[in-house]
Amino acid sequence: MAKCNGKLMKCFQVAVRFMIFSLVASAADGGEVSSDGPDLVLKTKSGFEIATADGDYSFKLGGRIMLDYNHYDGVINRQEGETGSDVFFRRARLELKGKAKDWSYVMSYNLTGGGSIDQLHASYTGFGEAAMLTFGQQKEDFGLDDTGSSKWITGIERAMASDAFDTGNNVGIKLHGANNQFSYSIGMYKESIDAGDNSLDTALTGRIVYRPIMNDDLLVHLGAAFTQRDGEFDSLGARLGVRGGEDGTANRGRVRYNGDINGDEQQAMNIEAAAVFGPGHLQFEYFSADVSGATAAPDLEASGYYVQAGWVLTGEQRSYKTKAGVFDKVKPSSSGGAWEVFARYDALDVSDTQADATISFDGGDAEALTLGVNWYYSSTVKVALNYVHAKTDEAINGQDDGDAIVARLQYAF
Amino acid sequence: MAKCNGKLMKCFQVAVRFMIFSLVASAADGGEVSSDGPDLVLKTKSGFEIATADGDYSFKLGGRIMLDYNHYDGVINRQEGETGSDVFFRRARLELKGKAKDWSYVMSYNLTGGGSIDQLHASYTGFGEAAMLTFGQQKEDFGLDDTGSSKWITGIERAMASDAFDTGNNVGIKLHGANNQFSYSIGMYKESIDAGDNSLDTALTGRIVYRPIMNDDLLVHLGAAFTQRDGEFDSLGARLGVRGGEDGTANRGRVRYNGDINGDEQQAMNIEAAAVFGPGHLQFEYFSADVSGATAAPDLEASGYYVQAGWVLTGEQRSYKTKAGVFDKVKPSSSGGAWEVFARYDALDVSDTQADATISFDGGDAEALTLGVNWYYSSTVKVALNYVHAKTDEAINGQDDGDAIVARLQYAF
Amino acid sequence: MAKCNGKLMKCFQVAVRFMIFSLVASAADGGEVSSDGPDLVLKTKSGFEIATADGDYSFKLGGRIMLDYNHYDGVINRQEGETGSDVFFRRARLELKGKAKDWSYVMSYNLTGGGSIDQLHASYTGFGEAAMLTFGQQKEDFGLDDTGSSKWITGIERAMASDAFDTGNNVGIKLHGANNQFSYSIGMYKESIDAGDNSLDTALTGRIVYRPIMNDDLLVHLGAAFTQRDGEFDSLGARLGVRGGEDGTANRGRVRYNGDINGDEQQAMNIEAAAVFGPGHLQFEYFSADVSGATAAPDLEASGYYVQAGWVLTGEQRSYKTKAGVFDKVKPSSSGGAWEVFARYDALDVSDTQADATISFDGGDAEALTLGVNWYYSSTVKVALNYVHAKTDEAINGQDDGDAIVARLQYAF
Repeated sequence: MAKCNGKLMKCFQVAVRFMIFSLVASAADGGEVSSDGPDLVLKTKSGFEIATADGDYSFKLGGRIMLDYNHYDGVINRQEGETGSDVFFRRARLELKGKAKDWSYVMSYNLTGGGSIDQLHASYTGFGEAAMLTFGQQKEDFGLDDTGSSKWITGIERAMASDAFDTGNNVGIKLHGANNQFSYSIGMYKESIDAGDNSLDTALTGRIVYRPIMNDDLLVHLGAAFTQRDGEFDSLGARLGVRGGEDGTANRGRVRYNGDINGDEQQAMNIEAAAVFGPGHLQFEYFSADVSGATAAPDLEASGYYVQAGWVLTGEQRSYKTKAGVFDKVKPSSSGGAWEVFARYDALDVSDTQADATISFDGGDAEALTLGVNWYYSSTVKVALNYVHAKTDEAINGQDDGDAIVARLQYAF
Repeated sequence: MAKCNGKLMKCFQVAVRFMIFSLVASAADGGEVSSDGPDLVLKTKSGFEIATADGDYSFKLGGRIMLDYNHYDGVINRQEGETGSDVFFRRARLELKGKAKDWSYVMSYNLTGGGSIDQLHASYTGFGEAAMLTFGQQKEDFGLDDTGSSKWITGIERAMASDAFDTGNNVGIKLHGANNQFSYSIGMYKESIDAGDNSLDTALTGRIVYRPIMNDDLLVHLGAAFTQRDGEFDSLGARLGVRGGEDGTANRGRVRYNGDINGDEQQAMNIEAAAVFGPGHLQFEYFSADVSGATAAPDLEASGYYVQAGWVLTGEQRSYKTKAGVFDKVKPSSSGGAWEVFARYDALDVSDTQADATISFDGGDAEALTLGVNWYYSSTVKVALNYVHAKTDEAINGQDDGDAIVARLQYAF
Repeated sequence: MAKCNGKLMKCFQVAVRFMIFSLVASAADGGEVSSDGPDLVLKTKSGFEIATADGDYSFKLGGRIMLDYNHYDGVINRQEGETGSDVFFRRARLELKGKAKDWSYVMSYNLTGGGSIDQLHASYTGFGEAAMLTFGQQKEDFGLDDTGSSKWITGIERAMASDAFDTGNNVGIKLHGANNQFSYSIGMYKESIDAGDNSLDTALTGRIVYRPIMNDDLLVHLGAAFTQRDGEFDSLGARLGVRGGEDGTANRGRVRYNGDINGDEQQAMNIEAAAVFGPGHLQFEYFSADVSGATAAPDLEASGYYVQAGWVLTGEQRSYKTKAGVFDKVKPSSSGGAWEVFARYDALDVSDTQADATISFDGGDAEALTLGVNWYYSSTVKVALNYVHAKTDEAINGQDDGDAIVARLQYAF
């Protein structure tokens, strides 16, 4: 701190400073906190956020913990005629985000399964919100529930169709943007490396969302997406609405090539429609895909859809993120938390695929009904309970239907 | 910042604010730091802590680094007649903790061995300290040294009996609580998944601690615990008081089934007693366990105990955590750090097991003497040096005793 | 906060405190932030730093993301006659640093490849900068580019010789220090564990740097290093100036023993010379190594060097870290960023090794020319583009030269 050098004003200044500091410091029962540069703003909600007051720089540290209990039987369990159960971390991630003027990054790391990168990307935002560029491992933006965060989907698991045709997170470059009415994204991604020449197999994926109505009473969301992928593909299918055990001990409904046959191209498209009206919401998605290019074998074809209806009993509204065109959290307005009920019907259709000696059907067409209740204690803690009834056209290990109870405790900081 | 709109009081207020800010800002040689919500309190001791002033929300980031050097010979080394040595990270973890009103979480990740979850759990604390619920991967609370933190055990390694009967960290649900006199916990945990039906094998584990005396001069700690486990179990035993090399190159004393024989149930119990009197402490634990249910093979039985006495030469007292009923750090009171010496005698008894063609004894009964010195430089840095002499009833690779020198540098932020 | 108990001065003090706080709090449009101990200083540049005002304690959280695109053909690609390509994270790390008085630590974790420890060490700095001790997994300090950070090397990849003779990061103890003229380090590290007796194979590595001139206009850096290693060694070589694909799909130029032959000792030495004159720099390193001790097989010998010249078009100067004797970032002085061009010639010579039936040469002697441009947008974001032409003495899979284009987006927070 500056010393008093004898000049009157200086001495006075120092004295006043000293007085103020003494008061401030003693009143605060501790030390002062300052920045070595621009003004800073802090926050904690059991994670941590810091930003410069001008918003040019920021850093946020958070994470998600999803602890699931699964109890499942019949066609869902890979062990014939048995009831399976497991308790495990469905997702556990450490998540960092930051911004430095026109650039920002996301670093999201999976702690489960020995550790892996979930998302890791840097974005250039200097052209404004209408045209941002994101480089690195990211969502491909294909489908409404798949593009939205796993923290704020309504069911514990996404619908069979969303699971079957999910593009996953891949390394690539994406151009994306949004205004109030539209959100779009188009990107080129790494699907795999071709072992024949060590070169990239790529995917081209695009999505557009249109919101004809978006006000406090009503949101109408319409969207469509496509993806075109090079690589090796040998099946189309999904788990039967339930994760099952941690180690993949649940069956999948699917169509697949026998032996070593592979297609070298996969195409898929999707249509989305959703509406939020006060505490209620309706949501619908349709997907269709085919795998082609296999030598001396027919193409694999599959399609699927789901319809979902939900109602927040305590009156809160499901929130929505215009930037990505996806749903977000239900934020409780009272200390008792928000309660939501929902129902979802899923269908997955693989019977368009031509039956052939080179092809097997595991279960064939499948459908699932999910009934659930969500308790949003806060934006940090969510508890969910789902009942799932799954049915397949053909029996797998002697069973063609099954039931499951799935519970989740979610802590997102 | 508010503008001066011409009204006298407003102008005066703005002027005073401006004056104060100028003084504060210039004195601090940098920018201001504020919260966008409630008042916040910060701390760093080479990690980072932030909390709201009302204590409702908090976040803490820390970690532990334990760098060990092991030098060991005789029966301890798996290579016959050779002296082994290694330098390696015994533990390295990144640790996050946070709180959001009635909920809190712990996220502790092992950086060693390619990465794995150490602890990951969320707790509901809304019923108060007498009855808290913890969900997720956590300690089962079985034994005094096993329940306490690896950072603040007296020896570099826990005693043979603590190691042999340790339940580890598992996913489950635990009810626990404490007052000044009692600490308790009871929980149900995932032991494994039964491959026959994909269902959970569980463990039920409980512990109770009673403190008849707890004042500044004297603490008396008494406790007992049990665990009942379903799953597949084929041995009971422990390393011979020394970790050995990073890659498990040290011998274990144990009894085990030959070939593919397994028991399907394990039971264990434990008794603990400890006292802290000024700079001194005494500690004793006894464990007993059996594995049963193997077809056409006798049960495995084992028991063990240790006695430990320690003295802090510089006069500090070993601290204690009532909440979990465990010992905590020795906090140095002077800048030279705290110096502690201790001795421990371990015994592991497997001779109660009936000798049988289906069973092998590696070393048979084992004992170890550990002499050590700890230097607590601060609550951050600890340096430890242990000498271990181990002995087995029967020779392993021609040796029935061995010696080791083990050193540790610990940095806990 | 203290209450007004009726005494006049106390009441006055409380009133003044209240007044000041009201003003400060309202002006800041949010809550107050204080320390529960000493004064603190904060910073964010999309990572996070906190330190006590006296500098005794500090914590920093950051990371690095390097996203690379590689396009390569000819001798560089392991697939004969094909053009390979890949986009992948060359490095992705979470990095923590902290200080507690005379001790400090670094925790750097690789998120790629399933997770692994990059650096993890604790240092004692109580003897001053002339003699610091570092314990744990750390750089061995061998070579100028190898000792410097991968974030601020001039090329996207280090030179062939730097790659061939890199000692990597190992667990050990290092004594190191620096003044304005000299930097030195000497350490003992774990090379591996000998399977015969489970004991440590160690490496002894030392480096010294001398700066005869260091002023704002001119820096002259001269250095030398050696390493002596016990363990099992079967080859000497390097990738051909290009990483190739993520999964090691690029060729290496090297000499190696056939079959199961190993040497049990490796020695290497290095000479470094560099100069920075305004925006320009010149850099040269020479390495020489041999592997000896193989039974009935000659020693492996290899040497290599590179010369590099760079020029920052926008006039900024490459920075330098005296403490470690290495180069650091180019910090842009204007908002358009800094632009740098460079050229590097690499040579790797394995023809000193005696040809013998026990030995194979992959490519034999190799050379590479790298031309590149770097755009330093800020100290956070760097974009780089390199062209590489590689040549080998003997063809590998029918090719003896190849070209590559390599691009990198780097985000360092």
